Amino acid sequence: MKTLIIGGAGFIGSHLCDSLINQGHKVGCADNFSIGTKENIEHLFENKNFKLYEIDAADRKKLRDLFQDFIPDYVFHLAANSDIQASAVNPDVEYRNTYTTTFEILSAMREYGVKKLFFASTSAVYGDKCNIELDENTPGLAPISYYGAAKLGCEGLISAFSYMNDIQSLVFRFPNVIGPRLTHGVIYDFIGRLNKDPEHLRILGNGKQTKPYIYVLDLVKAILQFMETGNRGVTLYNVGVEGDTTVTRIADMICEEMGLKNVIYEYTGGEGGWKGDVPRFRYCLDKIHQAGWRAEYSSDVAVRKTVQEVLKGKRD
Amino acid sequence: MKTLIIGGAGFIGSHLCDSLINQGHKVGCADNFSIGTKENIEHLFENKNFKLYEIDAADRKKLRDLFQDFIPDYVFHLAANSDIQASAVNPDVEYRNTYTTTFEILSAMREYGVKKLFFASTSAVYGDKCNIELDENTPGLAPISYYGAAKLGCEGLISAFSYMNDIQSLVFRFPNVIGPRLTHGVIYDFIGRLNKDPEHLRILGNGKQTKPYIYVLDLVKAILQFMETGNRGVTLYNVGVEGDTTVTRIADMICEEMGLKNVIYEYTGGEGGWKGDVPRFRYCLDKIHQAGWRAEYSSDVAVRKTVQEVLKGKRD
Repeated sequence: MKTLIIGGAGFIGSHLCDSLINQGHKVGCADNFSIGTKENIEHLFENKNFKLYEIDAADRKKLRDLFQDFIPDYVFHLAANSDIQASAVNPDVEYRNTYTTTFEILSAMREYGVKKLFFASTSAVYGDKCNIELDENTPGLAPISYYGAAKLGCEGLISAFSYMNDIQSLVFRFPNVIGPRLTHGVIYDFIGRLNKDPEHLRILGNGKQTKPYIYVLDLVKAILQFMETGNRGVTLYNVGVEGDTTVTRIADMICEEMGLKNVIYEYTGGEGGWKGDVPRFRYCLDKIHQAGWRAEYSSDVAVRKTVQEVLKGKRD
Repeated sequence: MKTLIIGGAGFIGSHLCDSLINQGHKVGCADNFSIGTKENIEHLFENKNFKLYEIDAADRKKLRDLFQDFIPDYVFHLAANSDIQASAVNPDVEYRNTYTTTFEILSAMREYGVKKLFFASTSAVYGDKCNIELDENTPGLAPISYYGAAKLGCEGLISAFSYMNDIQSLVFRFPNVIGPRLTHGVIYDFIGRLNKDPEHLRILGNGKQTKPYIYVLDLVKAILQFMETGNRGVTLYNVGVEGDTTVTRIADMICEEMGLKNVIYEYTGGEGGWKGDVPRFRYCLDKIHQAGWRAEYSSDVAVRKTVQEVLKGKRD
């Protein structure tokens, strides 16, 4: 199959490129390299089934040129701002990199008759609903971050474009995703800070923020599980793992793996790490489990494994 | 109070300007006159409490200049594409006129510290759910039109901007709105066609599309009812009327009021009027009724009254 991965040089996208190449698919990889890096994909450059397009998906003309050159069977759309803290300060980032990219990709699919989309959505569309087990039909979606808002807007676009143009769409609401090639987030930040100062660790919030962390290769398997399904319209899945991990527990694991003792944790206080952060959520995973996928690694195991791999400089 | 009505020269917006002026508020009216008309507001030009801004809300610079000149207490955001059939052919219209305008208005409110927003949303955010009585918490919002998709995206933006910037927002999901100054829609179209050919009437779909029609002045009262409420965050209301009216019934009423007999109805067939049209929906109105508002006119009465007024050329 001809697969187009938009945001293909990013953290998740580059792992998806690897898996699709390994399965024998042709891979078009589009990235603007604002967050993604060539380092993530350079091992694929010589592969005859791999083609790189250095473009910004919000650029209508260049995206159309790409579709003209490489009409895909499947589009995997992972292009977005992924740094929620950054866009909390500047919502324009979400308008452009998350919403507009999605609008342009759907418009190009409409123009070129591409009929299958995989989309990376997020738990952030639910907003702050810490007392509810979130399933795909939980009502009252009320994002509290600009990131969650833009992704909810994207889900709306996908709903309408899918209906109007007979596109089959799979929308995955991701939790926190971790593993090799991580570019930001709590694990990445803590290791960086402890490398600079192994005696103190500044921790945003009260450390009790509790989230499920999924290992990136588990997530890629979840996506690929649905390559050959044939439902019409939009199908939504929560993608998640067993258990969850507090921020303080992550700090503990990092200190253990780095061999640091008696590190002083300096909490900034408050329930969320920053305004717009959802401090705690739980997913109901019945739907995706019933569809035949289940994560191999629990949240704690995924965190431990990621910490070890990041410390070792593992990239694959 | 200083009130800013964006889309204030449009069908609904101009009636809102009238009511706010009558209540003694200062009114800033912003419109790009793409759908709105000077005719709708020219009777206000000499009023010292009325100020017109001829700008496009998607134009960041000009919108900021407006806020600089007229920092409002309340923003009423009615600027959007309102012609769903038009955007079915060209989704760019919704991206620009519905979503981008909302993003820019919220960004300006954030920058200028404006804390109260009234937003015109739509039943189209629900998608096609003909067998359910839709309440504000109905899950699985799945718009089938680009219009509904853009409005759902706007609701997401309002959720996040309200949380992040302590804005109080009232979001009204309107049904079909009719009355004097109507610019398009089934009543407007049928009268136009029958004026050209009083013997035949082309009717999109099978004529059984059934919707609640609200009289515009009832709707304006619903909005103004909430001027002084003080909830934080976002409050959502379905706004609607008792009963609903089929498209064929509308045609019958128009023929009666025009004194036409034996008009041949030529149905184009199919359940919806066009792709993306939701052929039937029903609202649960408990929430807004409990808040103290109820429409004066039923759907059938609103249709009859509108037909009479449009035929008479009534504009106020």
